[in-house]
Amino acid sequence: MTITAPDLSVFEERESNVRSYCRDWPAVFDRAQGSHLYDERGRPYLDFFAGAGALNYGHNNPVLKRALLDYLERDGITHGLDMASAAKRSFLEAFEHYALRPRDLSYTVMFPGPTGTNAVEAALKLARKVTGRETIVSFTNAFHGMSLGALAVTGNAFKRAGAGVPLVHGAPMPFDRYLDGQVPDFLWFERLLEDKGSGLNKPAAVIVETVQGEGGINVARAQWLRQLAALCKRHGMLLIIDDIQMGCGRTGAFFSFEEAGVVPDIVTLSKSISGYGLPMSLTLFKPELDMWEVGEHNGTFRGNNPAFVTATAALATYWKDDQTQKQTQAHAEQVERSLQTICAERADASYRGRGLAWGIEFTNPEQASAVCARAFEHGLLLETSGALSEVVKLLPPLSISSGELEEGLSILARVVAETR
Amino acid sequence: MTITAPDLSVFEERESNVRSYCRDWPAVFDRAQGSHLYDERGRPYLDFFAGAGALNYGHNNPVLKRALLDYLERDGITHGLDMASAAKRSFLEAFEHYALRPRDLSYTVMFPGPTGTNAVEAALKLARKVTGRETIVSFTNAFHGMSLGALAVTGNAFKRAGAGVPLVHGAPMPFDRYLDGQVPDFLWFERLLEDKGSGLNKPAAVIVETVQGEGGINVARAQWLRQLAALCKRHGMLLIIDDIQMGCGRTGAFFSFEEAGVVPDIVTLSKSISGYGLPMSLTLFKPELDMWEVGEHNGTFRGNNPAFVTATAALATYWKDDQTQKQTQAHAEQVERSLQTICAERADASYRGRGLAWGIEFTNPEQASAVCARAFEHGLLLETSGALSEVVKLLPPLSISSGELEEGLSILARVVAETR
Amino acid sequence: MTITAPDLSVFEERESNVRSYCRDWPAVFDRAQGSHLYDERGRPYLDFFAGAGALNYGHNNPVLKRALLDYLERDGITHGLDMASAAKRSFLEAFEHYALRPRDLSYTVMFPGPTGTNAVEAALKLARKVTGRETIVSFTNAFHGMSLGALAVTGNAFKRAGAGVPLVHGAPMPFDRYLDGQVPDFLWFERLLEDKGSGLNKPAAVIVETVQGEGGINVARAQWLRQLAALCKRHGMLLIIDDIQMGCGRTGAFFSFEEAGVVPDIVTLSKSISGYGLPMSLTLFKPELDMWEVGEHNGTFRGNNPAFVTATAALATYWKDDQTQKQTQAHAEQVERSLQTICAERADASYRGRGLAWGIEFTNPEQASAVCARAFEHGLLLETSGALSEVVKLLPPLSISSGELEEGLSILARVVAETR
Amino acid sequence: MTITAPDLSVFEERESNVRSYCRDWPAVFDRAQGSHLYDERGRPYLDFFAGAGALNYGHNNPVLKRALLDYLERDGITHGLDMASAAKRSFLEAFEHYALRPRDLSYTVMFPGPTGTNAVEAALKLARKVTGRETIVSFTNAFHGMSLGALAVTGNAFKRAGAGVPLVHGAPMPFDRYLDGQVPDFLWFERLLEDKGSGLNKPAAVIVETVQGEGGINVARAQWLRQLAALCKRHGMLLIIDDIQMGCGRTGAFFSFEEAGVVPDIVTLSKSISGYGLPMSLTLFKPELDMWEVGEHNGTFRGNNPAFVTATAALATYWKDDQTQKQTQAHAEQVERSLQTICAERADASYRGRGLAWGIEFTNPEQASAVCARAFEHGLLLETSGALSEVVKLLPPLSISSGELEEGLSILARVVAETR
Repeated sequence: MTITAPDLSVFEERESNVRSYCRDWPAVFDRAQGSHLYDERGRPYLDFFAGAGALNYGHNNPVLKRALLDYLERDGITHGLDMASAAKRSFLEAFEHYALRPRDLSYTVMFPGPTGTNAVEAALKLARKVTGRETIVSFTNAFHGMSLGALAVTGNAFKRAGAGVPLVHGAPMPFDRYLDGQVPDFLWFERLLEDKGSGLNKPAAVIVETVQGEGGINVARAQWLRQLAALCKRHGMLLIIDDIQMGCGRTGAFFSFEEAGVVPDIVTLSKSISGYGLPMSLTLFKPELDMWEVGEHNGTFRGNNPAFVTATAALATYWKDDQTQKQTQAHAEQVERSLQTICAERADASYRGRGLAWGIEFTNPEQASAVCARAFEHGLLLETSGALSEVVKLLPPLSISSGELEEGLSILARVVAETR
Repeated sequence: MTITAPDLSVFEERESNVRSYCRDWPAVFDRAQGSHLYDERGRPYLDFFAGAGALNYGHNNPVLKRALLDYLERDGITHGLDMASAAKRSFLEAFEHYALRPRDLSYTVMFPGPTGTNAVEAALKLARKVTGRETIVSFTNAFHGMSLGALAVTGNAFKRAGAGVPLVHGAPMPFDRYLDGQVPDFLWFERLLEDKGSGLNKPAAVIVETVQGEGGINVARAQWLRQLAALCKRHGMLLIIDDIQMGCGRTGAFFSFEEAGVVPDIVTLSKSISGYGLPMSLTLFKPELDMWEVGEHNGTFRGNNPAFVTATAALATYWKDDQTQKQTQAHAEQVERSLQTICAERADASYRGRGLAWGIEFTNPEQASAVCARAFEHGLLLETSGALSEVVKLLPPLSISSGELEEGLSILARVVAETR
Repeated sequence: MTITAPDLSVFEERESNVRSYCRDWPAVFDRAQGSHLYDERGRPYLDFFAGAGALNYGHNNPVLKRALLDYLERDGITHGLDMASAAKRSFLEAFEHYALRPRDLSYTVMFPGPTGTNAVEAALKLARKVTGRETIVSFTNAFHGMSLGALAVTGNAFKRAGAGVPLVHGAPMPFDRYLDGQVPDFLWFERLLEDKGSGLNKPAAVIVETVQGEGGINVARAQWLRQLAALCKRHGMLLIIDDIQMGCGRTGAFFSFEEAGVVPDIVTLSKSISGYGLPMSLTLFKPELDMWEVGEHNGTFRGNNPAFVTATAALATYWKDDQTQKQTQAHAEQVERSLQTICAERADASYRGRGLAWGIEFTNPEQASAVCARAFEHGLLLETSGALSEVVKLLPPLSISSGELEEGLSILARVVAETR
Repeated sequence: MTITAPDLSVFEERESNVRSYCRDWPAVFDRAQGSHLYDERGRPYLDFFAGAGALNYGHNNPVLKRALLDYLERDGITHGLDMASAAKRSFLEAFEHYALRPRDLSYTVMFPGPTGTNAVEAALKLARKVTGRETIVSFTNAFHGMSLGALAVTGNAFKRAGAGVPLVHGAPMPFDRYLDGQVPDFLWFERLLEDKGSGLNKPAAVIVETVQGEGGINVARAQWLRQLAALCKRHGMLLIIDDIQMGCGRTGAFFSFEEAGVVPDIVTLSKSISGYGLPMSLTLFKPELDMWEVGEHNGTFRGNNPAFVTATAALATYWKDDQTQKQTQAHAEQVERSLQTICAERADASYRGRGLAWGIEFTNPEQASAVCARAFEHGLLLETSGALSEVVKLLPPLSISSGELEEGLSILARVVAETR
């Protein structure tokens, strides 16, 4: 295939050096549908990235698109701050009906601003306010966002350094299997809590991802999560599960913590909650924690009503029964079989994952990057994650077909085999 | 008119206590067009609030709507992180063509995430990174956002307390006319900077709004801004103008600082930049400050392509010539005449403003709230601002017609007269 | 006089670069008596520095010396932590009898560790504990100590930079006459406190020196101190007067704040409290503030009993009547007359002071250093102060004789005249 | 014995609630000699506390007393700031001759102020300045002082809470044997350092006590210290050994780290360095770290010349050969034999220690307090340590005679037996 380089000049001249994905994927994307993006020359790309987990139902999902177009065409209110709106009411009712009630959850819903980091900031503020304490325990390789509060509980040293001020009030603990089974789970953490001389300020809360996406697809075992929840209860710390990337069905169930049977005190949701890639996020918490004063946290884009519309449609379409969850489980098995085969052939690669979040870790991080670069050449979008970008991350849309999944896994197998 | 109370039950039962506007405006809004919102019973409300300045071109502006529908219908890419996309290219070109070049500005553009507070966080991080210093000087009654970095430079004590941790690295200075002319401008600030024993950590930057919207429509004089810019230059501090609320023509010119003739080092834009109320924001800075490492700041919704589409249409439609600016000036005169009349009648009220951002301050803050409540009964949406909610704030869409403006001002005159 | 250089080799080779006075005064001191030090060759130096205010009663004062020798000879307990001891009881009784009761003060006494910075740390901890707030307001050019808590409320940028971490929780306000009378006193401070949108975290306390010694002998007017005390009361902030350098009679009365008629909530004393140059300090506070838990603050050298012995003797000898205060006033007049004459002759020098703390400020800071260097050559010890070392500081022992004072002032007059 | 209560009224009425030892030991101490204190009625107390380790050579040691009296009698300079003095020169020479040279150490000496917390503050400032980093790693149950910098690396939650501000920039790691051998040493710490996603800010330094005195007489193994030193070297962190309590021979050798064969980058000394209980402290560091600017850290009582005199005498008398060390080893064996017997009899008590620092830990903390209270009744001064005061701490003077030691151990055996 003869490819002339895409015209990236305006990006290179006008956009900040901070831009990143556009460097790995030198194409100018134009359209997108389902599991595919298309660049402006019409070349298709199979998407195993899904907006970093923001597109669980695929690009421009037709069901959601119809709802969105109808809403826009009839001049449904677009921007609503935290005014009551018909679209917001529909969303709240659908969220209660499809997400909360079937799971016996009774969370209060807060619209903290439309991005994940807004949701985390609101969660941390509330946890501190409720407990009167400052310290938040996070985990090694956690990722919670880029604003100052969320960044302080994010592990990545490179991103932390961007703060320009020392990040304080956080304390990292080992994520599940971080110390390779050499240490009993929570031994260190609980000793610090029990010992009045440990030097750990008593934490307000613990924030955790059930699967660390940016951190390298590190999967916490259900048992570990249950132990963590019990530890939080024993020591009066709030448990915050950041389900921004792993919620909305990414791991199978709607909430990623369902499998473990834990009920966090606070939950953050974003990314796929609108279903259409539109900015939206939620901070959920047990009603007794709702100690916010009126207007104590605000934000201009809390009321992104088009996102409420697509979110409502997504809930009503994909979470009215267990089809989505079952399909994800079937996809998961398909992925796992492929990764098993791919990694069986080489000692320097291992895989792990849950639902439709999988990673292949390479001993040599450069190979992970090389795999992604080669995949791009073959029209497959794949990204790395992990502190050293040592993990090839698979996050296909949940709505992907079995055939598309197979196609992507075949390309993956080929490019891994080519990368030695 | 007989009104039965709107059904707000799901909001009251499910949504957090933090919700605010829905309390002042007990209606369930459904549609919106131009200068009006409509509740689900079809009752119209004339909008003198404009999404807190996010809807300068009115609700569901038909030009932007057409562009948005076309884009969505043809499956233009919706969610793009920081990938290169055709829609983003069009936006960057339009921004250069209509916003920067005519003003001889050559800012580098960063997409820091789609909300104002994201833009401010990115600006502060960059200022600290570039200078290697931590302290940011802000001004009394400033409002810059709710995430931890932005909140630390926000003045409001009530919102600051929500942080749950002591907010540090900020230092407040008096905004223009804060001390009622009893003190030479910048006397205190410059003494602190010059004196090696003053106790002020040398600041990385100064962040300022040209008109403080949330702070009570406090208008900085052009001369004061020029002095501030000169002070920053003399002392090696970066000047950040937060143009989130006052940019995009709110004060007349596209950037609110044009009139003063200053060129900030860093500018934040959000709210009306997408034109349609869709979440979008920009951090602009002089090219020589672009010391970001690749991916050092990121975020899921940086690439909200539908917002790029409406933003492009807004620039091409409303900023291709000086019509918007001229119309805003005409509107401004109309508003000022009315406010003069309204305030002439009473000693306990005074007005101020610029462009289409105006405020009436009442000696007794309860009267400001009462005016807004009465206005709502008459179908006019008005909000208060200021630390004590003592200022009735007028932020109509720039696109409002002269007749609509007159209608709103008449209602305002009437309710002010009724409120004693 | 032929002087061979003193042997400073071990200091230069073994002691840290941080050493400072030994550079300005290149002599190896051996003995000291009254107002004089003697180097190891027997050369006398008239002391206008008095241990930076730690030797108000002169070097090795014979009355205190006798008490100290007696105590040591009879094996009085030396090191006592916070055990009850006979020497401590005598001190507490003497402090109550000679210092507190005659002034109608009923402070609780805390022994926070034997240095000034210990006393300040304890004061700040208590103020924060009692109020539940973090911010401490200090003043431009304040000096309160070198440990992290005290350094955060110290003005000097050079010393602050030594912290190696950003110093937070402090907020500087203008000291008396800082803005040269262009601004009404406390206008800015009180506006910040009254305005809920000012951005100043509500302070726990205000810490202030009545005369800033290290800051350049800046003298607060009695009226200004009274206004400050009233401001603190109005706004529920504790008033801490750091009387470490100016207490124990340096300004005339035992406490430097007596003249103003204010009663601080917390007072720190150190330097001359032991009277003999032995490390000792006190944190005094109103009894109702004594919310310390048992052992919540501790320190190995809180119970420096030899210092209690000399402190007791100093109180009983010098504060049994008003002779010390009267003599200081007489000395003050003598100093002021001389400084008036000295400064009358040149436009580039001005003087100020109170009690026996005086300063001559030179427009050109190098002249202040030159004056001190020349004075040393003439056998007079004089130091500079101020952020730029622009002030020649006079702190002779209170016990100096009129003749010695005259001698020193004559040398001063001569070297100032020689320094152009 | 009929005892009337001592008169503690002035302490109870005038001194702060924070006082502590005087509550456990209700006596008014008057004289002290060698291993005994005497209250004002002449009752002797055998001292197994030694000023919390500040009186290694006993109370009012006659050799040091003679030197001190001579110095005072001849009007040797008492208070010298950081001026060069003959007494300081003698001390520096003696320190070089007796402490450094025989151990092949070439530390630069800093006089940071006369208390332990001053020494720690200076050490932390220097470590941060030299590395440009903020975080200091400390260990569980560490004690380093009460001023804000030192308190932030101290473990005790009760004392930390006294700060009144969140203590930041510290990170606790497990001290030796903290996790009861269930975890390989330094596994967690090194993983955090190696992993760029761990969330630990790269530390400037590690601060450690070789034996944690206040923390409960926790003894680090030599091998653990060597591993720690190697870890610091591998990761570019400075190693600070806080030898304030364990230095000056408390564990046998002059420096407590000699046995392990490590050479810290920075060492803090205080408590017994003056030998006579006079306030004095040192911060020692490798010459290449001496990046202090002139006067960047200061303090009024840095030049406590009487303390230099006794310190010099102590070095020349007790460290001219290895007699002190040998005697301490002999004492240590004597103590260990007794503790073995004492603890053999009961399952709820265990002992540990090194040199002349020993502890008996009781399962029930109340028993530790009861043992100390009973010991006091028998005229033996003993204190508890540990976060729950669960450890009876033995710190007799190094100069104690074998007979005195036996006497104290007998009382201890008896009161332990009586306490069930």
